[in-house]
Parts: sequence; structure tokens; C-alpha cells
Amino acid sequence: MKELQERILKEGRILPGSILKVDSFLNHQIDMELMDHIGAYFQEKFRDAGITRVLTIEASGIPMACMTAYHFHVPVVFAKKARAANLGPDVYKSTVHSYTYGRDYQIAVSKAYLHAGDTVLIIDDFLANGQAVHGLMDLCEQAGAQVGGIGICIEKGFQPGGDELRRRGIRVESLAIIDAMDDHHIELRK
Amino acid sequence: MKELQERILKEGRILPGSILKVDSFLNHQIDMELMDHIGAYFQEKFRDAGITRVLTIEASGIPMACMTAYHFHVPVVFAKKARAANLGPDVYKSTVHSYTYGRDYQIAVSKAYLHAGDTVLIIDDFLANGQAVHGLMDLCEQAGAQVGGIGICIEKGFQPGGDELRRRGIRVESLAIIDAMDDHHIELRK
Repeated sequence: MKELQERILKEGRILPGSILKVDSFLNHQIDMELMDHIGAYFQEKFRDAGITRVLTIEASGIPMACMTAYHFHVPVVFAKKARAANLGPDVYKSTVHSYTYGRDYQIAVSKAYLHAGDTVLIIDDFLANGQAVHGLMDLCEQAGAQVGGIGICIEKGFQPGGDELRRRGIRVESLAIIDAMDDHHIELRK
Repeated sequence: MKELQERILKEGRILPGSILKVDSFLNHQIDMELMDHIGAYFQEKFRDAGITRVLTIEASGIPMACMTAYHFHVPVVFAKKARAANLGPDVYKSTVHSYTYGRDYQIAVSKAYLHAGDTVLIIDDFLANGQAVHGLMDLCEQAGAQVGGIGICIEKGFQPGGDELRRRGIRVESLAIIDAMDDHHIELRK
């Protein structure tokens, strides 16, 4: 998606450890016009997939997941992290390893909001090793819901998450794929 | 706002300790059509306030803050909780006490996304004791930004947060105000 790719090249900053900061428009300060375009793009890409529900994980996946659900006219559900204390006992749970923070965390979604019969579009801002997506897929599997596809804003193509999912036959659409990064340069897939 | 009030009365569930659960449409599973109407409503209410930026706190304030910013055509920023480790040193920070979880937590926003000269609309899903709003106002004050108003989806009118803010001359618009609750009944202000 050209608009997002241009924003990444223009505003993205690289921190040591191949951390790409896009917090001026994607995950701290949010450009809602861009989110609207992202939502419309995912809706167009997955419009034949029979999507009944959008699923993401708090917090930075929420804006783009919301706008995708808005364009699909379906509900969006966000899996909650750790302090799911007040979610009650009727939740599906999974464990996700965060490479960024070097620790595991729990995610949970209420059983009331993910069902057998749902076809779920998983949306997230980043895909690198695919840990968060695997956790969300695990929640879908526990619910007996189908995963209709995965929509990612920025995929780190030099990490294995995206290709592993594609090899399993799962449809992954990434709006921008970074093939390589060093401390000064981002190389996006054409 | 009639649409939200009707949803609260129809779908809200009360847990022991006066906890109102509205997670079927507001803060776990999200009805984006309702969020769109909420955003339009806040835009209409605060349209003369000169709003340049919407500010909320992760995670449950994000959907309605996003849609409000969408209608204002301004950026939305969400303050991050605790694990702000990768936000870098250039942040404004404040401490918020959570009565729900019985502990303090830190919130932070990057200095790059909150400025002197901004007129900020603070948006959140709930207002009870006002702790989160005070934290967000503290961030604005540190930045030299003005608070143009506060937009709340559900105010617990039997707790002091909203009226304390109004007594200080701050404009608070709440879409639904709960005057009283017991284990079986919610009384909304007419």
C-alpha cells in the first residue's frame, strides 16, 4: 500500500536492535485518515473471505482493527493482555512471547465474543516472529472459529513470522514488507 | 446520547462492587457504528472549542477517541501505560491510581506528540473518580497544552470525578450519566 510505504520511508525512525519507530502516525500518535484508508484496503483485499469479526490485541492494533471492522460492518474484538482479572472466568487464554520486552504475557478474550461459525480477520500493526498472531489464532481455534486471513500493516520480511504463516496456507496481507534494515536505512519490498 | 443510553440499559451487566460491564459494545467487543456516532456527537459538542488534538489512554479509550479524532480531522494520541520502556526518555509522565485494580500505574506520552499551543480534547470510556483524566490533564499541563474539554462515554454520577472537574470550570460532556446502581438496576440521568 503505497500511502503507508511512503509514510514509513518519510517518518520511520530506526532504533538500535532493528526497532522501527512509526509512532508519529501508526501507534502512538495516530493519523485517522490513514487508518481509514488502511481499513478500506483490508476490506477490499478480504472482501470475498466471508469475514464476520475482526480480532486484534491491545493496544497498538486497535486503531487499524477498528477502521477495518468499520469498513466491513462487523464487530471488532480486542484480546486483553495480562491484567484480565476483571474479564471473569469465561475467557479463552493464550500465552505470547514478546521479543521486544523479553518476556511472556497472557492474552485473553471473552468466550461471549468469539464463536464457532465466526470467520475472523486478524489485524495487527506489526508482524515479525508472529508470536502475537499465533496467540490470536490459538484463541480462534479454542473458540472453533475459522481464521479467514491476517492483515498486517508492517511485516518484517527478514524475520520468519509471515512466511511461516503463508507456508501453512494462511492468507497474510501486509501493507508494507521490510526486506532489510540497518541503523540508517529501510529497504521495502517492491 | 440516547443511542448509548439505550445500549447500556439493554446490554450492560452489573458485577459486585458497582462494576458496570459494557464489554459487548464499548470496550472488549466494539460496535464501530456506535463509535462513529459517538465520534460525530463529540465533534458536534466541541466544534467551537478549537480542538487540535485528541488524547486518551490505552486501551479501552482508543476506539472512541479514534472516531472522535476522525470526525475532527485531527491526530489522536494515546498515553501508554507502565511498560513505556521503548518510548525513550523524551516523554511526559504522570501517575494514575486505579481503584479497579487497587494500584498506581504510570502513564506517558512522547513530547513529540503533545505541544504548547495544542487545544486538547480528552476522551475516555469511563469517568468515576477521575484519576485517569487527572493524569491526562497533568500530561497536557507539562506540555503547556490547553485542555479544551473532556468527552466521556459513561460517567458514574454517584462518584465525584465529573463534578469536581466541572467545579474547576472544565467542560465535561458525558454521553450517559449513571445516578445510581445496585446489583440489579442502573438509573441513568434523564
